[in-house]
Amino acid sequence: MKLVTYRINHAPASLGFVEENMIIDAHKLGEIKSSHLPDNMLDFIDLGIEGINHAVHLMNTATKEELLDCSIPLANATLLAPIPKPRKNIFGIGLNYTEHVAESARTLDTSKELPQQPVIFSKPPTAVTGTDTDIIHNQKITQQLDWEVELAVIISKHGKNIKKENAMDYVYGYTVINDISARDCRRAGQWIVSKGQDTFAPMGPMLVTRDEIADPHNLNLSLKVNGVEKQNSNTKYMLFNIEELIHDLSIVFTLEAGDIIATGTPAGVGAGRNPQEWMWPGDVVEATVEGIGTLRNTIVDSEEVK
Amino acid sequence: MKLVTYRINHAPASLGFVEENMIIDAHKLGEIKSSHLPDNMLDFIDLGIEGINHAVHLMNTATKEELLDCSIPLANATLLAPIPKPRKNIFGIGLNYTEHVAESARTLDTSKELPQQPVIFSKPPTAVTGTDTDIIHNQKITQQLDWEVELAVIISKHGKNIKKENAMDYVYGYTVINDISARDCRRAGQWIVSKGQDTFAPMGPMLVTRDEIADPHNLNLSLKVNGVEKQNSNTKYMLFNIEELIHDLSIVFTLEAGDIIATGTPAGVGAGRNPQEWMWPGDVVEATVEGIGTLRNTIVDSEEVK
Repeated sequence: MKLVTYRINHAPASLGFVEENMIIDAHKLGEIKSSHLPDNMLDFIDLGIEGINHAVHLMNTATKEELLDCSIPLANATLLAPIPKPRKNIFGIGLNYTEHVAESARTLDTSKELPQQPVIFSKPPTAVTGTDTDIIHNQKITQQLDWEVELAVIISKHGKNIKKENAMDYVYGYTVINDISARDCRRAGQWIVSKGQDTFAPMGPMLVTRDEIADPHNLNLSLKVNGVEKQNSNTKYMLFNIEELIHDLSIVFTLEAGDIIATGTPAGVGAGRNPQEWMWPGDVVEATVEGIGTLRNTIVDSEEVK
Repeated sequence: MKLVTYRINHAPASLGFVEENMIIDAHKLGEIKSSHLPDNMLDFIDLGIEGINHAVHLMNTATKEELLDCSIPLANATLLAPIPKPRKNIFGIGLNYTEHVAESARTLDTSKELPQQPVIFSKPPTAVTGTDTDIIHNQKITQQLDWEVELAVIISKHGKNIKKENAMDYVYGYTVINDISARDCRRAGQWIVSKGQDTFAPMGPMLVTRDEIADPHNLNLSLKVNGVEKQNSNTKYMLFNIEELIHDLSIVFTLEAGDIIATGTPAGVGAGRNPQEWMWPGDVVEATVEGIGTLRNTIVDSEEVK
C-alpha cells in the first residue's frame, strides 16, 4: 500500500491511499462504506496491519462510483511529509555505510574505524518537511550545507528489547529522507544543531508499507544536486541492517508506533568530495530510493523566507 | 501557580493545581463552574497565560464547598512527571556550569575550554518518568550510571529567532530534572544513548509557573545520593543563562509550547569525583531546586523490572 499525507489547496491535511494516478481519501472512503478510517497517518499506523487490511477490504468492496466519490487525481494534490509531525525526534543513524565512514574520517572529525555499535543522533519534529518544499539555508550559521539520501524505516508498534529475528514485525513501512547536515554546526561533537534545523528532515514523497518492498536490503538509493548525480549506492551495503538497528535501538529506548529511523547515508556527500561541495540557495536536491520515489527540494536563503 | 499531573490509584492521569496540601482537579473545577479547563498539562500550557488567569479566576470565585468537591489531599495522589509525554525530545544543555566543564574535561572526553555556544543534545519522551519512581539500570550496557540535577524550563509558545530581551515571555514555568547519564554509552561522541535511555529523564515533582519564581537565575540546586550531598550550586553560575539559551535554540529550531529545556548541571557529578562514583540498584537519588521541590528516585536493576 502506498500512503500519503496530502492537501488540496488550503484544506486541512488528510490521509490518502495512492492507486495508480489517484489518491483515495481514507476518511471519506470510511464514511462512504459506513465504517471508520482515520484522517491522519499516525492514527492509521496505530491501527497496525489490521488498519491496512481493513482499508484494503473497504477498497475492494467499494463500487467504482464509490471510489470515484472519494478520490482525486494525484496531480491535483500537494503531498506533505508522510508523517508531518512525528511524536518524538527522528532517530538518525550515522556512519552506517563503509565508504561513508571513510570519507567522513578524511574530512570531518569522525573515526576511520568502523563503528562497533550504531551511532545514534536525533532530528526534532520541527525539522520535518515534505517533497517539493524549501530547505532553509541560514547563512548566518552555516556555510557547509550538505545532503544525505537515506532509507527511513517507520516503526509499527511498541517494543523493547526486540530480538533481531522478530525485528521486521516492527516495521510498518518505508520512506525516503534527506538527512540535511550543516557540517560547521557541530557543537562539542554533538550533531543535533548540524542535523536538526528547521526543514533539515525532508521526507516523502510517500510511505510504502512493508509488504510492498520485497527486500529492503536490496534497494538502490541515489541523490542528485541540480541534476548531477552525487550519491549512488544500495541498501545492501548498510553496516548495521534494519533488524540490527531495531534490535539495538530497542535495547536502549522503548520504540513506539510511528517512530522513524533514518538508516544512514552512503558515500558521496559534499563534505567527502575533493574539493568539498556545499548547497546554496537556488540548488535543487533530489533524493531517490528504489520502490519508494523521489524527494525533491530547493535550497532557499533564510532571509527570503521571512 | 503550582501544577501537577497526578493520578489516584489506577485512574487516568489528570491535571491539578496545588494549594497548600490539596490538589484541585482542573477539569472538575471547570465542570463545577460550568466552564472548561483541560485535563492534561500540555493542553493547559497551550492556553498560555490566559489559561492560568482563567483557572485562578475560577478558583477565586468558587465557594469553599465547590473547591472541596474537586479537591483531594496531595498525600493521597501519585504525582507523575508534570509533562508525562512531551511532544518531542527534551533539549538538554551540556557543559553549562564552569566547574562542571572542568570536571568533565578531567574525566570524560570533553574540552577544557568553556563552550562558545550552548552544547545541545536530546532525551526522547520515552525517557521521562516522575518522582518516587525507579530509574532502570541495565548492567548489560552500563557500569557508569551518573546523576545531574538541573533546572528545566518549559516553553510557553511557538517562537523562532527570539530576541534575548523577549526570551522570558516564552517561559511558561520550571521543574526539576535529573539528567541521568550512562557515561560509558557514548557512541562516536554522541550522547543520546548515554542520556536517553528509558527512565533517564525523571522530572517533577511539579511545574511551577514563571510568576512564582522571582529570579530563576538565583536558585539553589542540589543533589543527594543515599542522603549524602553530591552537588550544591546555584543557577546564577550558568554559563549561558535562560534568555541566552532560548535565543540560541530558537535560531536553530522553532520552539513550541510544551518544549522542555534542561539547562545543564553544576559540578559534583559521579564522573568528576576521585575516585569516580556511580549509582547502583538500591541507591536513592534526590534532586532539589529551590522554589520547585525535590525529585526522588530509586535505582533498580533492569532484570527486576521485567
